[in-house]
Amino acid sequence: GAPFDPTEHPHRRWNPLTRSFVLCSPHRTKRPWQGAQETPSKERLPAYDEKCYLCPGNARAGGQLKNEDYESTFAFENDFAALRPDKVQDIAEGQDGNAHPLLRSFPARGRCYVLCFHPSHNLTIAQLTTAPYTAKEHILPIIQAWTRLYQSIPADNPFVRYVQIFENKGSAMGCSNPHPHGQIWSLDYIPEEPQKELESMKAYANDELNMGCAKDDRGRPSLLLTYAQLELSLADRPRVFEVNDDFVAVVPYWAVWPFEVLVLPHKRQIASLAEMSQEEKLSLAEMLGAVACRLDNIFECSFPYSMGIHQRPVATSQGGQDELGDYAQFHIHYYPPLLRSATVRKFLVGFEMMGEPQRDLTAEQAAARIRSCPTTHYLAVES
Amino acid sequence: GAPFDPTEHPHRRWNPLTRSFVLCSPHRTKRPWQGAQETPSKERLPAYDEKCYLCPGNARAGGQLKNEDYESTFAFENDFAALRPDKVQDIAEGQDGNAHPLLRSFPARGRCYVLCFHPSHNLTIAQLTTAPYTAKEHILPIIQAWTRLYQSIPADNPFVRYVQIFENKGSAMGCSNPHPHGQIWSLDYIPEEPQKELESMKAYANDELNMGCAKDDRGRPSLLLTYAQLELSLADRPRVFEVNDDFVAVVPYWAVWPFEVLVLPHKRQIASLAEMSQEEKLSLAEMLGAVACRLDNIFECSFPYSMGIHQRPVATSQGGQDELGDYAQFHIHYYPPLLRSATVRKFLVGFEMMGEPQRDLTAEQAAARIRSCPTTHYLAVES
Ligand SMILES: O=P(O)(O)O[C@H]1O[C@H](CO)[C@@H](O)[C@H](O)[C@H]1O
Ligand SMILES: O=P(O)(O)O[C@H]1O[C@H](CO)[C@@H](O)[C@H](O)[C@H]1O
Repeated sequence: GAPFDPTEHPHRRWNPLTRSFVLCSPHRTKRPWQGAQETPSKERLPAYDEKCYLCPGNARAGGQLKNEDYESTFAFENDFAALRPDKVQDIAEGQDGNAHPLLRSFPARGRCYVLCFHPSHNLTIAQLTTAPYTAKEHILPIIQAWTRLYQSIPADNPFVRYVQIFENKGSAMGCSNPHPHGQIWSLDYIPEEPQKELESMKAYANDELNMGCAKDDRGRPSLLLTYAQLELSLADRPRVFEVNDDFVAVVPYWAVWPFEVLVLPHKRQIASLAEMSQEEKLSLAEMLGAVACRLDNIFECSFPYSMGIHQRPVATSQGGQDELGDYAQFHIHYYPPLLRSATVRKFLVGFEMMGEPQRDLTAEQAAARIRSCPTTHYLAVES
Repeated sequence: GAPFDPTEHPHRRWNPLTRSFVLCSPHRTKRPWQGAQETPSKERLPAYDEKCYLCPGNARAGGQLKNEDYESTFAFENDFAALRPDKVQDIAEGQDGNAHPLLRSFPARGRCYVLCFHPSHNLTIAQLTTAPYTAKEHILPIIQAWTRLYQSIPADNPFVRYVQIFENKGSAMGCSNPHPHGQIWSLDYIPEEPQKELESMKAYANDELNMGCAKDDRGRPSLLLTYAQLELSLADRPRVFEVNDDFVAVVPYWAVWPFEVLVLPHKRQIASLAEMSQEEKLSLAEMLGAVACRLDNIFECSFPYSMGIHQRPVATSQGGQDELGDYAQFHIHYYPPLLRSATVRKFLVGFEMMGEPQRDLTAEQAAARIRSCPTTHYLAVES
């Protein structure tokens, strides 16, 4: 057979964080597209929309409450939360009429919050990077609000074990309101994804073969610190597109979504927002702005994505060396669906649902494309 | 706390097949929807479209080839296949310039095919149930074609280890052509999803605690046969909506998608299409028609979904008791995205991507809704 060429030959890549595979079909980018088109979001929204339930001073979705006249960020409890704080009884054998080992369920408790990023209805994080806005003045407050919530929610709700911060941006990603905002769901358990990742980090830390790798606080091998430093050490840095003093942004080797992004600390273990210095938070603010702005510039549209922070679960009183949270490395995932243009997305359907995820362009091709985009927002350039 | 009520209280359900959780928030069905709307597919398509690259006699997507003047089903190799049959060299240490244990990839070989279900451009499986069409005359041939491909692809391509049959229906599910068709991807490895399921089936078969359960061919406990019989044995059959001599259709206890469906044999272990009798194939044809027709009738629209068959991987020469394929039970998954109407879908984004899958209405509520739908197609009733 021919020598393997990753830009030409179908191959599977291994994701060491979730321990799963992705099928890459680099030759398939030539395929014509005759399927569904997305509607790109109307680019020019008003700065204030009287019908928006997130704008300052407006009535909320429930109808009863009114938003504060906020001037920076604004957090409130979700009026249609997927979780509730009420304690219900554990499900005793047979109690729910489904007494069989194949029918297992468990009560779930939690609270859900919404965080408005900015009073303006029409300013996304991507735009807050470009004059007259600055990451320091307009994105740093978002990170500070996340930090407060990450600390105050468990303090006020002692049952909470995990705080999931995320943003759905754009209607293609199920976002029902263009006003820049994210969500925070807190739960009395660690959900699947962070649980899987923490277990991988723990296994990596305790594998003697990894002793030469970058170390965490406790001197143990760190999966994500090793990966961040590895990406920075390679000739031409094929998957890196942004780096500053504390953080690096890559299209991970094992990316599933076409322009998937992973933001990682590259200097030290940072378990969570609570352990981040002011300087690191500023670096992170600049990084978030740069990532979002470059994504918008790829197709000169407001680039839809889901982004989410994985970090340390809420410390429990057990503590000790073996606590899963001790292995946590803060990081941010971006899962953006667009593939070829502002209107043509990648569908993870059919084979992806029944078999395993599949992608066309390689991570390296995607990173090169993002790297070639300017860090000045296209709307600022146009006007 | 209050006694647990699965129709009122958020809870997690356990999926024993993929060994993962889904978060259920039954109270959340009251949430208003202000987000994206799907465009329901144009209902009245012509029986023949001269621009369709799947209609009989027409030019194909590549442009070079022409389709046969087929009168029943028609299979051909995908002109833009995600996999190729060429043998490439294994990736030796360092060969792809990525020599590091965190950067692992493996060549993947395979062939991809398209199967047109019917010469008519505008007849889906859902409609082939209703006069003048019958499942026996118009759906059974699809099952026979799948059976031929399931057997001939590995026979002609000895490297093939797994054959994934699936259908993406509707533009909301990334389908680029409304002409009724499915795909068949064959691979030189077992992809993640069937691999996970087979491992669960094997673990179940070898767990002594399950000895009282329904047995497979070899007298071992069968996860999916036990589950099928359990669903049929419960008072009021809360998740069953269709049953015939050989197959049952349920909204599984652990469903993620709003109207997710699982079709299962309920009499015996059927490892694959190759082991199915003619009578069973006819039962399956009737079941496929009934499922698709009921789904269409929920919102009186052509209901989008991805469906896929999981069955026995290609038997290798190793054979023997411990072969994973010996544990296989044939089954079909349907993952339909619609939630509230023909235009409002469920998005598995944000929390679902970063945390774990979440659903609003319960599996039992969804099954009751499907059960209440007629099995005569709404278009046939209208006309
Ligand atoms: O092959 P098609 O129908 O053009 O493409 C569709 O199905 C494939 C297999 O599920 C997916 O990889 C594509 O994302 C989807 O758009
Ligand atoms: O809460 P929202 O923005 O109305 O809803 C959106 O985000 C949620 C959390 O990711 C998802 O469960 C919903 O499917 C999605 O539409």
